Amino acid sequence: MAKQKPSIPSGTRDFNPETVAKRRYIFETIRTVFEKYGYQPIETPSFENLSTLTGKYGDEGDKLIFKILNSGNLIADVSSQFFIPFMRELKDKDQEIISSVFDSKNPRENIYIEEFGEIFKPLLKHISERALRYDLTVPFARYVVMHQNEITFPFRRYQIQPVWRADRPQKGRYREFWQCDADVVGSDSLILEMELVRIYDEVFSQLKLPVAIHLNNRKILSGIAEAMNATDKFVDITIAIDKFDKVGLQGVRQDLHNKGISESQMQVLEKFFSLTGTEIEKLEKAEGLMGDSEIGKLGILELKNVLNYLSLSGTTNSEIKIDFTLARGLNYYTGAIIEVKPVTVQMGSLGGGGRYDNLTGMFGLDGVSGVGISFGADRMYDVLEDLKLFPEESLKTTQVLFVCFDEKGIEFALPLAQQFRKENISTELYPSAEKLKKQMKYANDKKIPFVIVIGDEEMKSGKLAFKNMNSGEQRLLSGDEIISELKK
Amino acid sequence: MAKQKPSIPSGTRDFNPETVAKRRYIFETIRTVFEKYGYQPIETPSFENLSTLTGKYGDEGDKLIFKILNSGNLIADVSSQFFIPFMRELKDKDQEIISSVFDSKNPRENIYIEEFGEIFKPLLKHISERALRYDLTVPFARYVVMHQNEITFPFRRYQIQPVWRADRPQKGRYREFWQCDADVVGSDSLILEMELVRIYDEVFSQLKLPVAIHLNNRKILSGIAEAMNATDKFVDITIAIDKFDKVGLQGVRQDLHNKGISESQMQVLEKFFSLTGTEIEKLEKAEGLMGDSEIGKLGILELKNVLNYLSLSGTTNSEIKIDFTLARGLNYYTGAIIEVKPVTVQMGSLGGGGRYDNLTGMFGLDGVSGVGISFGADRMYDVLEDLKLFPEESLKTTQVLFVCFDEKGIEFALPLAQQFRKENISTELYPSAEKLKKQMKYANDKKIPFVIVIGDEEMKSGKLAFKNMNSGEQRLLSGDEIISELKK
Repeated sequence: MAKQKPSIPSGTRDFNPETVAKRRYIFETIRTVFEKYGYQPIETPSFENLSTLTGKYGDEGDKLIFKILNSGNLIADVSSQFFIPFMRELKDKDQEIISSVFDSKNPRENIYIEEFGEIFKPLLKHISERALRYDLTVPFARYVVMHQNEITFPFRRYQIQPVWRADRPQKGRYREFWQCDADVVGSDSLILEMELVRIYDEVFSQLKLPVAIHLNNRKILSGIAEAMNATDKFVDITIAIDKFDKVGLQGVRQDLHNKGISESQMQVLEKFFSLTGTEIEKLEKAEGLMGDSEIGKLGILELKNVLNYLSLSGTTNSEIKIDFTLARGLNYYTGAIIEVKPVTVQMGSLGGGGRYDNLTGMFGLDGVSGVGISFGADRMYDVLEDLKLFPEESLKTTQVLFVCFDEKGIEFALPLAQQFRKENISTELYPSAEKLKKQMKYANDKKIPFVIVIGDEEMKSGKLAFKNMNSGEQRLLSGDEIISELKK
Repeated sequence: MAKQKPSIPSGTRDFNPETVAKRRYIFETIRTVFEKYGYQPIETPSFENLSTLTGKYGDEGDKLIFKILNSGNLIADVSSQFFIPFMRELKDKDQEIISSVFDSKNPRENIYIEEFGEIFKPLLKHISERALRYDLTVPFARYVVMHQNEITFPFRRYQIQPVWRADRPQKGRYREFWQCDADVVGSDSLILEMELVRIYDEVFSQLKLPVAIHLNNRKILSGIAEAMNATDKFVDITIAIDKFDKVGLQGVRQDLHNKGISESQMQVLEKFFSLTGTEIEKLEKAEGLMGDSEIGKLGILELKNVLNYLSLSGTTNSEIKIDFTLARGLNYYTGAIIEVKPVTVQMGSLGGGGRYDNLTGMFGLDGVSGVGISFGADRMYDVLEDLKLFPEESLKTTQVLFVCFDEKGIEFALPLAQQFRKENISTELYPSAEKLKKQMKYANDKKIPFVIVIGDEEMKSGKLAFKNMNSGEQRLLSGDEIISELKK
């Protein structure tokens, strides 16, 4: 085997023990809250049939799906089974195009290369028919349809798994990253929207990360377009106002002006943005602005119900904000739209979600309403790290290291170490009789908080030198005394 | 979007909530024991550079590596950037081979197809330069070399992640499955072998699954070959005796006879298999059979030390068995060889491992000794399922469901449900006012142990109908009384 300088693919990461522990702290917090609200975990395979994924994420998305080669022995297998027979059966016209593209003396122009690509397209399924999971939503829809007869609806599920996208890697954007989704399908009750807001509130409260939870409703967006008398420009309007955060009111004005929204239409829109009062009051005022829009009024009513359920079930730590600019791409939301933003740091959203009416329709199961949220674990990690919010407790590693200087010491320490482990104390014995300095450096590097030194004196007296690595304090204690000390 | 009947790729699995909970029980048991012995978690990316993986698993292994397409837009990108330029620059001889293979009127024979494959081999790196993780060992070696300056040795790491193999799927063999590995690198202390045996013992004790832990040493196998005066047939001998379990002594005899082992050599070998007494006594008798073999005696000494450390550190629940037939493929073990087998059911090994001397050498870092073990999580799952050893506790889901009959009931239940959750009781409120029967069926299907029914009477009196779904018993209690009941 040739020696090689190892590296990992761009956009992927190794996680060292400290990072795994911190990530685990985030995932376990989310998981515990999900379960407290009755959400149950499922897991789906890392790769799906390519046909399950293609056509679900738009043309751009399709290009970012990581496809897996069918055969470990690609060239030989594809060639002999598909490529060669395929070439032998090509029509004369296609043969001619290929020959001319390959011709080194007189090559054809690019237009032929496109035709060339078209000719070979039928080969693709022989090269790849599986692909890595791109998100957790489409596999969930596929799961619900496949297992509909085993599932009791409403089905509350959560899923915490990695997804892969062939995006250009950049700071904070990875080709392998984790999604944490909770969805309920099979009920259109607004109780569920309320619970999902509570889940956000509880997770971020536990993480001690102050957030604002923004709420909107797709129906209100429709209503605003109706009130503006601009339903034909619905998509333009929502795309424009979704950028309010970044470009401000002037930016939105400019954008909509370019899209043909008149000044009087713009004035109707601006009224929605300038509403004041409590969140309920804002909704009531917005209702007055809706004019004849039935859908808009329905959206207002839905949000009022969610706020009412929230207040009935108690206070939240997070700020709840009605936000008529919130659209979140709109690709499939039909009701509530939810987004979480940190309030003490400047950073994009930490999660979002909403109500969708026909997720499973793509796999032939119609009429299943759902609502769900997602946590952006990688961004949460960055914020918690910036704000130094990972608790010491989450990084707990080995509690105590036995340090010995000879084989006799090791043999003395062995039964003690085992006794400590019986008491569920995470314990190491330095596996060889190295110099004290080296063993202490090991404890330091690994952030082991306590060290027990086994020298000749200690073995004679049974009183062991028990050192607190943080304070430097050292005491002579028996094994049992140390155990009760550590279990305090 | 066209509707499609969904399916998943063969060899992969969906895990439903119950299965996820059971798997989690296994993983958490293993994880907790690993950490109790000071092992720390790392995680590596799901895909590695193809060059990191190829050449590490033999020719057969290489074919089973799942390779990922470089481009989402394969045909167009590969064609325009590589295929067409490549074809234009082919030598005349290769051009001729290709033309003749493609010729539909007068196609060439298979020999040309092989040449054809050779011609296209250089294209492979443009098609795929990443591949899914095939095991956790090579990525670990790659990790140690890449991060050697951040790591304090001896480095105890564990890793619980899925791996992928393009094996033919069959019962119990999947294309996506999970490995749970613990390894220490940077120390040749036999204390570590002892600890790994203890980890096996502790995990299977906690799972209440009786196992035997088999121990051997590669040096003893070398010693046996020397004692037989058949060092030239070392590989044949170990392959043959590794099958002792399946084919019995007669099978081994036959196999070795075919490989040219004489009757007198066979008699030397058989003496090793017929040793009796305690495990230590077997080792001592085997030492007597080693003759002049220094390496064999060293292997005996190593195993005796491991047994000595084991007995010093206390009793084990598992049977510890010296087993001179154990070889485990031998691909890279240099010292101890370990394997775990269930004792109450007929099934293959549940895990194995051993000492290897130069794992990181393939990435240019020599002289790092390591020892490690692996748990076969999928097989453990099957055994625990067969023996009904998953505890009820591991399947805990929602604890209590609030059942309401109208909006008023729901509004009454909302603050109560939230109070329950504050007490860390996993609580659901059926999200709409359905018939009692439907809501009870939901609780049954989801195995929710307690139901609280909110009717008009209950709202008036504040005493709620608290039903135990297992016993059928129903009592009228206040919310606070139910909380203290549930927290018992």
